[in-house]
Amino acid sequence: MPNTAEAAAAFRELLRKISHYEEALALMAWDLRTGAPKKGVPLRSEAMGTLASEAFALRTSAEMGELLAQLTDGAAAAELDPVVRAAVHEVQKEYDRFRKIPPDRYQAYVVLTTQAESVWEEAKHTSDFRLFQPYLEKIVAMKREFVEYWGYHGHPYNTLLDQYEPGMTVDQLDALFTPLRQQTVELVQAIAGSGVRPDVRPFRGSFDKERQRHLSRCLLERMGYDFSAGRLDETVHPFQTTLNRYDARVTTMFVPDDVRPAISSTLHEGGHALYEQGIDPALIGTPLSQGASMGIHESQSRFWENIIGRSREFWEAQLPLVQQVFPELSGVSAELFYRGMNDVAPSLIRIEADEVTYNLHIMVRYELEKGLMSGDLRVADLPGLWREKMREYLGVEPDADATGVLQDVHWSGGDFGYFPSYALGNLYAAQFRSALARDLPDYREQVRRGELGGILAWLREHIHRYGKTRTPAELVQQVTGQPLRADDLVAYLHEKFRPLYGL
Amino acid sequence: MPNTAEAAAAFRELLRKISHYEEALALMAWDLRTGAPKKGVPLRSEAMGTLASEAFALRTSAEMGELLAQLTDGAAAAELDPVVRAAVHEVQKEYDRFRKIPPDRYQAYVVLTTQAESVWEEAKHTSDFRLFQPYLEKIVAMKREFVEYWGYHGHPYNTLLDQYEPGMTVDQLDALFTPLRQQTVELVQAIAGSGVRPDVRPFRGSFDKERQRHLSRCLLERMGYDFSAGRLDETVHPFQTTLNRYDARVTTMFVPDDVRPAISSTLHEGGHALYEQGIDPALIGTPLSQGASMGIHESQSRFWENIIGRSREFWEAQLPLVQQVFPELSGVSAELFYRGMNDVAPSLIRIEADEVTYNLHIMVRYELEKGLMSGDLRVADLPGLWREKMREYLGVEPDADATGVLQDVHWSGGDFGYFPSYALGNLYAAQFRSALARDLPDYREQVRRGELGGILAWLREHIHRYGKTRTPAELVQQVTGQPLRADDLVAYLHEKFRPLYGL
Repeated sequence: MPNTAEAAAAFRELLRKISHYEEALALMAWDLRTGAPKKGVPLRSEAMGTLASEAFALRTSAEMGELLAQLTDGAAAAELDPVVRAAVHEVQKEYDRFRKIPPDRYQAYVVLTTQAESVWEEAKHTSDFRLFQPYLEKIVAMKREFVEYWGYHGHPYNTLLDQYEPGMTVDQLDALFTPLRQQTVELVQAIAGSGVRPDVRPFRGSFDKERQRHLSRCLLERMGYDFSAGRLDETVHPFQTTLNRYDARVTTMFVPDDVRPAISSTLHEGGHALYEQGIDPALIGTPLSQGASMGIHESQSRFWENIIGRSREFWEAQLPLVQQVFPELSGVSAELFYRGMNDVAPSLIRIEADEVTYNLHIMVRYELEKGLMSGDLRVADLPGLWREKMREYLGVEPDADATGVLQDVHWSGGDFGYFPSYALGNLYAAQFRSALARDLPDYREQVRRGELGGILAWLREHIHRYGKTRTPAELVQQVTGQPLRADDLVAYLHEKFRPLYGL
Repeated sequence: MPNTAEAAAAFRELLRKISHYEEALALMAWDLRTGAPKKGVPLRSEAMGTLASEAFALRTSAEMGELLAQLTDGAAAAELDPVVRAAVHEVQKEYDRFRKIPPDRYQAYVVLTTQAESVWEEAKHTSDFRLFQPYLEKIVAMKREFVEYWGYHGHPYNTLLDQYEPGMTVDQLDALFTPLRQQTVELVQAIAGSGVRPDVRPFRGSFDKERQRHLSRCLLERMGYDFSAGRLDETVHPFQTTLNRYDARVTTMFVPDDVRPAISSTLHEGGHALYEQGIDPALIGTPLSQGASMGIHESQSRFWENIIGRSREFWEAQLPLVQQVFPELSGVSAELFYRGMNDVAPSLIRIEADEVTYNLHIMVRYELEKGLMSGDLRVADLPGLWREKMREYLGVEPDADATGVLQDVHWSGGDFGYFPSYALGNLYAAQFRSALARDLPDYREQVRRGELGGILAWLREHIHRYGKTRTPAELVQQVTGQPLRADDLVAYLHEKFRPLYGL
């Protein structure tokens, strides 16, 4: 048997090898979304299947099992340097998760979700939930079966939440979401009743794509995005992906007749990328070299998109750039631009929702997922329940499943427990903002002067560099001195939107 | 032991798996050249190293050895379908090549050539051959050592030639190159003495990059390139790469003050890509799904770049497109454009050489390589010999190693035996042209009418679809009814260039 130092070196080497497969797979996925020729997709998918299987085999290999057993042994664990110790803990969780599922059941799950995604596409296209229903029923049943293999404390949904948001539980989410929902519903109703609507006519027009690209590049540069460790491309659905520690890519979208989607998407994905570009390089080659959780990651994108990028101060500083790129907007004032970026109104589609109503879309999904996993809800009842909850929380109701229960891809891939991360991102972001205001009381003045470097440095110092070496709860406590709570987001939304709508 | 059918299936499965690694590696290399961020390169290189090692391990694995042993056994081989039998033959050659080198020597070679490439870069940058000399001496010594492991018939260089151009020998090359050299030197001297130089002033100007991109796309479409199975990007050094059978990518270059390099590069790389897009899909997942050889591949790029793309008929048809994209060229006649695309003059740099002088650059390298491999030449003498041969064949002589012996990267990577493929490409292309003229006597009229589909169909039918199931010699014999010979190229060059230069 190797001694501890040798085992630690072998462990790091194995992780590095896995990270190399992940880099290839991330590039192959990025390429598929940024312009790979469509006839090449079937062979590409096969190639990705081969590499993904190989990476999976390495993760669950006998060698990995032996190294983990040796390195989690009390005496050995005490000798390890903290990075390796934290990596061992993280990898052990993943190892257990994979090893607890019987291989034939996992294989069946992969086949099922692969089929289900194309069925979902067809069902959404024809707006026919009944097509998708039998697949979703099987996915839900299998996910519940998996939860039994994995085990759970309290609610079965807790185990799924934990996979995206380590440590998060139904109890905590209920305690956060209930007051947030009540206060948000009230705010949305008040806004709707205010009679005020921002003037969005100036944002309608014809906006050249190359100019939008130039504007997006400038905004990323001003945020502090390092283009020598990333790149910007155009896609229909914007995303951020990290190939390696020095290659954090962003994509954005260009809508020909509205300049705002490019701005919001660029700031959002740029926020994700800044997180990745700020992680301590000592964590390279380990699974700690990523965000603390989906929710914490989303907090960084929302922070830049909403808290900074939809603030009055930001547009006082940045509007001249937009006007330089699009002289036709030179008659628009910063105040009008700010208001146009903050048009609040209930709508059907989550990904198009504004800053206020967005969380209500998440709550609809959260409650349905929770009920499916506990067995209290049946898949067949989803379309009706969806409409009911939309009416209750948002006051609008889809007349077709395509714009209702079928709008999102997540369930077809078995991703239950993911949606809450989006709302958690907003909660974390607002609470981080309070801490930022405490540490940098003039941060708004900095934004007004176009200085974003101090804010980025604060995020790097307090959040980014830690990567996944802290749980979300530890990180929030450490940064803000408080556990996660709804108060900061509720206060932020009221403070910002009541005056905007004359309330 | 599996039966023959099972072994054949396992063999194909193993080849498919190797092809998946190759796809990932090809994409990673493409990405590095088309815009991957530079800070990410070191980690990317590590990842590529891991995947390349894995692919190598699969190629030389005990499983591969056993499958090859079983499938090359007389009785089993007779049962195989022809594709598998040809693949077995091809893979066996590669397997032997790798297995005959002791692993520690191969490892030393990889380390040496990796170092040598950056030393070459530095040496070229400072134009100092002495920097590179000790590395090149080691590479030559090692390559000669490898040839001993591999074995050879006749000249030791034959074994290296065979790796790029299966079956090619020094005797054959000498017999081809000697008359070609004599006739080309005479023609170049006659052209130089003609006093005629095309007017290239119209091609000088300021040519917008996005318009050049549009023009390149249009030219590829007109050639018959399938954009749904490929894509076009911009790089400093244009190339073509194939990720899978339905993903054959091209890059081209945009020179701001001359529109010709984009045109030539696009037609050249497009020619390579058309070959790849025409290979029989039955060969997918085997090493037969590639060109017959480097030389045959080059024949396809040269065919489109030179024989079609530098013909009078082509510009009679295509000039209106160029003028539509660049109205400033509307005063240029097709005849003037044709002449401007055929400016012949001796120069120092191979990759900038014209259609006539190009082969002389290759012959300089061929003779030096041959002497190095036989031991008749010393590395230390290369710079002097280079100048001597350039003066003898081209009448020009570099005053610095950077524009002489150090200009090409190939030797730093140990690629001896590759250069002749470029000239072979020209020879094959000219001989294929004769066969095309026999089968499609009005092909020039078709080109003049802008119809390129008949020519592409002929290339597909007679060359492309076979992939690597024919040796170059078999293919040439089958297409043209003759073995490879210099006559067609010599006749073509005289027929085209003598009238152009009033000779």
